[in-house]
Amino acid sequence: MPFHNKPVMPKGFSCASKNCGLKIDEKDLSLFYSDTPAGAAAVFTINRFCGAPVIAGREIIRAGILQAIVVNSKVSNVGTGEQGISNAKRMGAAAARELGIPAGSVIMSSTGVIARQLPIELIEEGVKGMKKLLTPDPLVGAEGIMTTDTYSKALSLSAGNSVITIIGKGSGMIEPNMATMLIYIFTDAEFSAEELDSMLREAVHTSFNMLSVDTDTSTSDTCVIMANGLAGKVDKDEFLSRLKEACIGMTKLLARDGEGASKLLTATVNGAYDEKEARYLAKLIINSPLIKTMAYGADPNIGRVLMAIGKGFDCHIDRSKVEVSIGGKLVYKNESRIDFNEDEVRKLLSGELVDIIVELHVGNSCATAYGCDLTEGYIKENASYYSS
Amino acid sequence: MPFHNKPVMPKGFSCASKNCGLKIDEKDLSLFYSDTPAGAAAVFTINRFCGAPVIAGREIIRAGILQAIVVNSKVSNVGTGEQGISNAKRMGAAAARELGIPAGSVIMSSTGVIARQLPIELIEEGVKGMKKLLTPDPLVGAEGIMTTDTYSKALSLSAGNSVITIIGKGSGMIEPNMATMLIYIFTDAEFSAEELDSMLREAVHTSFNMLSVDTDTSTSDTCVIMANGLAGKVDKDEFLSRLKEACIGMTKLLARDGEGASKLLTATVNGAYDEKEARYLAKLIINSPLIKTMAYGADPNIGRVLMAIGKGFDCHIDRSKVEVSIGGKLVYKNESRIDFNEDEVRKLLSGELVDIIVELHVGNSCATAYGCDLTEGYIKENASYYSS
Repeated sequence: MPFHNKPVMPKGFSCASKNCGLKIDEKDLSLFYSDTPAGAAAVFTINRFCGAPVIAGREIIRAGILQAIVVNSKVSNVGTGEQGISNAKRMGAAAARELGIPAGSVIMSSTGVIARQLPIELIEEGVKGMKKLLTPDPLVGAEGIMTTDTYSKALSLSAGNSVITIIGKGSGMIEPNMATMLIYIFTDAEFSAEELDSMLREAVHTSFNMLSVDTDTSTSDTCVIMANGLAGKVDKDEFLSRLKEACIGMTKLLARDGEGASKLLTATVNGAYDEKEARYLAKLIINSPLIKTMAYGADPNIGRVLMAIGKGFDCHIDRSKVEVSIGGKLVYKNESRIDFNEDEVRKLLSGELVDIIVELHVGNSCATAYGCDLTEGYIKENASYYSS
Repeated sequence: MPFHNKPVMPKGFSCASKNCGLKIDEKDLSLFYSDTPAGAAAVFTINRFCGAPVIAGREIIRAGILQAIVVNSKVSNVGTGEQGISNAKRMGAAAARELGIPAGSVIMSSTGVIARQLPIELIEEGVKGMKKLLTPDPLVGAEGIMTTDTYSKALSLSAGNSVITIIGKGSGMIEPNMATMLIYIFTDAEFSAEELDSMLREAVHTSFNMLSVDTDTSTSDTCVIMANGLAGKVDKDEFLSRLKEACIGMTKLLARDGEGASKLLTATVNGAYDEKEARYLAKLIINSPLIKTMAYGADPNIGRVLMAIGKGFDCHIDRSKVEVSIGGKLVYKNESRIDFNEDEVRKLLSGELVDIIVELHVGNSCATAYGCDLTEGYIKENASYYSS
């Protein structure tokens, strides 16, 4: 594993979290801070009902410099009109005052219930004194941004002299086009905002944008990268390759902790006509409820995989060339089921990973998508989640 | 209700069903028959892994004349290569021999497990003697085509002097682009194959193609209409309007009996930019797992509806104009939640229907989509369905 045993904030970064009264007991407010202004880039949800912090964030990130991120959980500030935008800005301003930095160098996120106004006074009051709580432990910051996640998520790895640390939350209402809900990437490497922007987009393309828990794209998805340069210059190729690794690592953590999930589900499509079709087909597989329940049931159901590929109505598919492997076992080739030991494959699928590989043999492109199984846990969680 | 209290096959039509040994005890083979050759049309799944009967059926329907339909359940004859095509043809030929009609006037369907060869000898043997079992009760024919349906489905209504009777099965692996698995429409009205084809496509457009149980498009979806003309000519406009009614009626029956479903879920989008966007958005709503679980939980969750609309990334949406009603109650307008009595709405949603209406106010097009809630029942059914 390339990841550090214990994640740590890179040089000059710190974070804090606390309860400010939005939730009853649990932490609901997090702050991420760089001692010095950092180059920054971000990508956001493309959901048309995006939240107020996303609307405000798109403006803020244009300058390419950030020094802090403030995040609340419990209320998402979505579907809240002009008052929502104003509240988002007040939240950023409150964090800037506490940290003694310009308001324009703070980006905001909110996650939780939709169509409720943010209790902004609680947040303004809560953020006071948080500077004293700042710590280099990223899991502390991760705690305040959780909603239905079952544990806080952070990972670190090295890239040359620098460290890359990702803090994330996910769980439900997650599908591509900025799949994850909230992802914050910190590094002490030195890069310009432009370089960060292009590297972030490239890394997100094969990681968070290939993640789907339930096909439902959140209105609040945000992924920010900040680079304060305290570790100096790092080879760009090496950095990008480590950044991709880190993003895929966090993608798997989020998928595995999808609402109600008991397994990580991955689908790889090889030999596709082009990358677009490879990505589309891989996502069709991980998004199919019948495949998700098959993963849960640990059953190597060839029919459901063929069905899912067949939903690529406009893709280049030659039925006679398709090969399917489930759990590393070739199960379908030459338009017929291969005789395999089903009990053996069921055993392979009963662990924490269900892995589907499809060889199309019509081109040279490939893609991998990340998801999870669909269990009674997802139903229970979402049928009993009251919006008020 | 426009439907007859008791469905009946139109003049000159009859059907039969029996167990031929594919299933242990339950009926697994059905025959539908017209005393005289009938004008006919059909639409099929667009899944790229379509079954052998679909491939063969596309050829057969070109002549525009049918006299019988033979259907087996338990094995779908999908992913079976050349041998599958040959078996499908043998199945049609066996039915033609039994009925004493040309092989080319019989269309075949198979539904059930994928990637297993059809036990064709059992079917050839089983179809013998079925002519003597023919009855005018459509529910008898409906019994032999069931897979995970919880009850057999047929309905009849009058169109002028004629009768329209639809027999259908559905339940899982169902989503638009020929949503339903197997639908057979019989009428004694007199129409040419061309007229039937255009009317069928128009009726399917607003009914079965707006149905989704789980977004998974079956490899076997087939919808056939046969018109033997024994009731003479019927006004075409009147017939089409009754045909649409009948198809929507069957669509609701199939949605309500979706795998594990406890409720019918409908979504209507009004004031859309064009019909394509109205249909797309209505389907986004009924397909969202978060909305499906919200329906199950009888919770009026505005956020999930906004999120689902927002997934129309390329649609014309003006956030400030969107209005949402749930269970007949206006809950969101002017970019804010309307103060409503939540317990009252929960009571409205706790029945057999959850109805979502979205007013976009950007155009004049509308569409309604049909689905069902997502419950533990769906998970149980599909996680324990073994493919062998």
